[in-house]
Amino acid sequence: MDVVDTGTTAFMLCCIIGLTLMIPGLALFYGGMVSVKSSTNMMMMTFGAVAVVGVLWVLFGFSMVFGTSYGGFVGSFTEFAGMKDLLESQTTISGLQVSLFALFQALFAAITVALISGAVADRMKFGAWMVFAVFWAVLVYFPVAHWVFAFDGVVTKDSVGGWIANSLKAIDFAGGTAVHINAGAAALAVAIVLGKSAMFGQLRKPHNVPLTLLGAGLLWAGWYAFNGGSALAAGNSAAIVMVTTFVATCAATLAWLAVEKIKDGHVTGVGAASGAITGLVAITPACGAVTPVGAIAVGAIAGAVCVYAVGLKERFGYDDSLDVVGVHLVGGVIGTVLIGLFASDSMPNATNGLFYGGGLSQLWKQCIAAGAVMAYSFVVAFVIAYAIKKTMGIRISPEDEESGIDAKLHRDAAYELQTL
Amino acid sequence: MDVVDTGTTAFMLCCIIGLTLMIPGLALFYGGMVSVKSSTNMMMMTFGAVAVVGVLWVLFGFSMVFGTSYGGFVGSFTEFAGMKDLLESQTTISGLQVSLFALFQALFAAITVALISGAVADRMKFGAWMVFAVFWAVLVYFPVAHWVFAFDGVVTKDSVGGWIANSLKAIDFAGGTAVHINAGAAALAVAIVLGKSAMFGQLRKPHNVPLTLLGAGLLWAGWYAFNGGSALAAGNSAAIVMVTTFVATCAATLAWLAVEKIKDGHVTGVGAASGAITGLVAITPACGAVTPVGAIAVGAIAGAVCVYAVGLKERFGYDDSLDVVGVHLVGGVIGTVLIGLFASDSMPNATNGLFYGGGLSQLWKQCIAAGAVMAYSFVVAFVIAYAIKKTMGIRISPEDEESGIDAKLHRDAAYELQTL
Amino acid sequence: MDVVDTGTTAFMLCCIIGLTLMIPGLALFYGGMVSVKSSTNMMMMTFGAVAVVGVLWVLFGFSMVFGTSYGGFVGSFTEFAGMKDLLESQTTISGLQVSLFALFQALFAAITVALISGAVADRMKFGAWMVFAVFWAVLVYFPVAHWVFAFDGVVTKDSVGGWIANSLKAIDFAGGTAVHINAGAAALAVAIVLGKSAMFGQLRKPHNVPLTLLGAGLLWAGWYAFNGGSALAAGNSAAIVMVTTFVATCAATLAWLAVEKIKDGHVTGVGAASGAITGLVAITPACGAVTPVGAIAVGAIAGAVCVYAVGLKERFGYDDSLDVVGVHLVGGVIGTVLIGLFASDSMPNATNGLFYGGGLSQLWKQCIAAGAVMAYSFVVAFVIAYAIKKTMGIRISPEDEESGIDAKLHRDAAYELQTL
Repeated sequence: MDVVDTGTTAFMLCCIIGLTLMIPGLALFYGGMVSVKSSTNMMMMTFGAVAVVGVLWVLFGFSMVFGTSYGGFVGSFTEFAGMKDLLESQTTISGLQVSLFALFQALFAAITVALISGAVADRMKFGAWMVFAVFWAVLVYFPVAHWVFAFDGVVTKDSVGGWIANSLKAIDFAGGTAVHINAGAAALAVAIVLGKSAMFGQLRKPHNVPLTLLGAGLLWAGWYAFNGGSALAAGNSAAIVMVTTFVATCAATLAWLAVEKIKDGHVTGVGAASGAITGLVAITPACGAVTPVGAIAVGAIAGAVCVYAVGLKERFGYDDSLDVVGVHLVGGVIGTVLIGLFASDSMPNATNGLFYGGGLSQLWKQCIAAGAVMAYSFVVAFVIAYAIKKTMGIRISPEDEESGIDAKLHRDAAYELQTL
Repeated sequence: MDVVDTGTTAFMLCCIIGLTLMIPGLALFYGGMVSVKSSTNMMMMTFGAVAVVGVLWVLFGFSMVFGTSYGGFVGSFTEFAGMKDLLESQTTISGLQVSLFALFQALFAAITVALISGAVADRMKFGAWMVFAVFWAVLVYFPVAHWVFAFDGVVTKDSVGGWIANSLKAIDFAGGTAVHINAGAAALAVAIVLGKSAMFGQLRKPHNVPLTLLGAGLLWAGWYAFNGGSALAAGNSAAIVMVTTFVATCAATLAWLAVEKIKDGHVTGVGAASGAITGLVAITPACGAVTPVGAIAVGAIAGAVCVYAVGLKERFGYDDSLDVVGVHLVGGVIGTVLIGLFASDSMPNATNGLFYGGGLSQLWKQCIAAGAVMAYSFVVAFVIAYAIKKTMGIRISPEDEESGIDAKLHRDAAYELQTL
Repeated sequence: MDVVDTGTTAFMLCCIIGLTLMIPGLALFYGGMVSVKSSTNMMMMTFGAVAVVGVLWVLFGFSMVFGTSYGGFVGSFTEFAGMKDLLESQTTISGLQVSLFALFQALFAAITVALISGAVADRMKFGAWMVFAVFWAVLVYFPVAHWVFAFDGVVTKDSVGGWIANSLKAIDFAGGTAVHINAGAAALAVAIVLGKSAMFGQLRKPHNVPLTLLGAGLLWAGWYAFNGGSALAAGNSAAIVMVTTFVATCAATLAWLAVEKIKDGHVTGVGAASGAITGLVAITPACGAVTPVGAIAVGAIAGAVCVYAVGLKERFGYDDSLDVVGVHLVGGVIGTVLIGLFASDSMPNATNGLFYGGGLSQLWKQCIAAGAVMAYSFVVAFVIAYAIKKTMGIRISPEDEESGIDAKLHRDAAYELQTL
């Protein structure tokens, strides 16, 4: 029988609490940024996606990600179906029960799908969103998570895992590719299929800045579980990962605000929130690869670049409502690629990037991983969204959009603040 | 000297953080659902109940619950009074310090009392609420928690505990009876004594849906500490319990939204929040007894049934303002009773229910436990509320209710959003 | 090589999550209390302070606090600069990695600076605030934290630490002096330099009571990490500290509400929130020194006194907008000094106060520590603020203050609740 480490178990159990804070965190971060007519719908897309992906995960999702691989592309559909045998088996990953690892990964899947919803604000049918969540989870997230997170031999002793983790050997500590590039590329595809909202091009004012800042704060807290927990042990790696996560977030917030000040003449609350999230996104793949000072560089670069990246949608005319592309896709690519430059072999990933004398090979692997996930997610998400559009319909009517999606879909105003 | 397990200690220390998130979580879940004229009062009932129960707990509550039993009904009033000797004694429960166990249980007591406040929105005097909280904690919660949570020999080696845990041997992992049925039955009693609010029968619109969804999210996060922490160890049981807690919540959310869609033609934000909480309530007693697929069944059944249960108040004419009966009492009964059907002996409680070949005996024990707690709590809560009504008065005047309880009791509008 | 305790590591890793919850917690606690015209600015001061202090901490702050001491006054500027060597060194503090300890302390620094912002609501330039944060962190927080938290030999085997911890031997478990008195005294100085806001003397109504109560709840949850984590181990001390933290908060909430009721005839939501925070502040230095019943006394005294302390600003005419002085300075002094009376040697600090037969010596040490930190912080904060005022300017124009700081500095209304 494997020995369970109670410290590692304690850490990972508490990471579940932390990751769950990201559910209201994301719902509020997005829900505060949309108009008051779409806030309930926006928050429900997060809760709905988490709920449906959670059930899929137990039924067969965990098996598809961590079951024995079909050629590095996807795991067995049935090996761990229902998760019951898994709970009984008592096997561990270096002292961590597989059942707990499976739950940790469940939250990754659920949150990644929910991230996409930021691109479809104000105008997507709720039923269409739920159907999209199901198909994208099964056809994109489960395979891609297998590519990136299923290391050979991790869940069962002689299992074979995914190609990015084991053949390409790109570094992605906690999901720069599988989570952020993946969700960001899907967001771009769905935004294109959906078309622009009636409000596109106008200044979209957040209806509740305090909720957005609160959401960013809850996400920040939960992100330590995301990144730190990816060390899968209560030890030095997790501690180092949290240090880099913390300081990259601080640096990105400062960079965003500084560029905003220079560019626009003032700083904003949404800017502070977006800067923090950009830093968290960019450090996610790199948190185990770069030094604390390297993390300051990664955060600052991501924060400064993404202030401009969120303007791409006006330039290219896709309506990524809440900047999932500008923050998660661009921030995810920046973090994934900068590993090739800033990685230091004194950190947990034990690899040197170009600036630390490591040559170009890691940089090249990082680009392959980022590009492969981006292309696969974009294409399949586009096909799913297009199929939904042509069958059940994907968008509410212009009249309903005008009067507000909350009123139409949910018969529900977010607020009733009049006392009479 | 007993040996302390640092992993288990770490887990339980962090569970205190998680449980404390349920305080603002509950305050917001309820506070967002009431009218804008009652929001401050609603939230203060949670904070007030926690504060007074916390002090009582240290003074003598812990002793009443876990002190040596008077015939299985209630523990010694003085054995651990003031908790000082307890802190010094350094005894442990399988590696867990008793002082930490005592704090964990303090939060259970505090949150259970606060749950009741959802039934009395808009119309109960704040002083009357605080008095009710004191008497109900002492006369109902402390004894009932003794029945259910005080296992023989747990706190001191040869102590004798409560009758449900030790004689009846009903299964209640984390408080389906002692917490949810208990609070739900008390809520029904107080709602009847108070009478209907002026708004009863009208559509009661939540004044702030984002706060209610946020509250549900914080409760969800904290609930892992509630259920997982009830394993009292950082090990496989806690991990399994968190898996079932997660997936039951997901399934209940989907079920509530699906039934709402079929019944009303649309889904709502409050429905998503209520569905999640219903799943959490129903899995609370069952989280260590059912498989992950069993948890999906428990969650889905509870979610689907409780959409209808919240309509009982219109039918029977009691004004349980925020559906403590429909969610906590009905959800708690569903979860407690379904153990008798869905329990699997491969799970931590190691018992088979009817569907797994275990016969009717466990089902019968579950019904006894649920019925006993419901009856006791309802009767004593009714007497306490009635006594308050006849002495200090329990309800604000109709005029004050019309102008709003916040304005009357707290000279405090929840919001000042006008800039002039 | 030192052995890492995985349980302690797990606890401290999770404390980082808990401490991070204090960032949105503080932002909302303050952000809900100000007028709707200043809410975004108020919240951004917290996020901005955390971001800049986080970067400073990695670059040289940790080194200044925990590097080898220059005469007990401040640590080496360069010893741990960049924190990279520290991450590699793998040294531990009784089983806790120094890298994790450094991150834990980073959050203390960041939150302490952010606390000050409550005194400057509605009227301080955002750039001036950020400059103040940098200088106050470097010139005041880093040295004072060295005095109080740098115990001899903790970070490196033969390092020499700060004078309050090692020479004076005052008791301050988690920062009554270094955090609360320190921030409170600085708040007083900056409020005086800034001058009164246009709204001073009028009844300042909180614009969003639910956000303030939510903020208090998140702070409460995170505070367990603050106080419990200061035990630096997952053991009995941390458990005891959490018990006293919990019950002091409950007692202070009750005391504040009771005094408010007697004094004003009603209780308020902001009173419940302020009472809880006051209890948390007062127990911070004392949480390892007093028994649970002693903690009730400390909390109740602080809660009752501070209801009056927040009125001092009207009397003396300084505009400490959100009562950082009345809550953090006065509450911090009460908690620090009461250790001299209520300390019991059966608790982790193993010292008897006057009421437990310990004589006057500990009381005297507590007064010295409180007085020294207060005087140093006040004087240096005053000089920094005055220098800012005379160079870049510290205050927005009266016209901008009238129209609202959010509109002026951030072009950003906190809310857009109109649907048209």
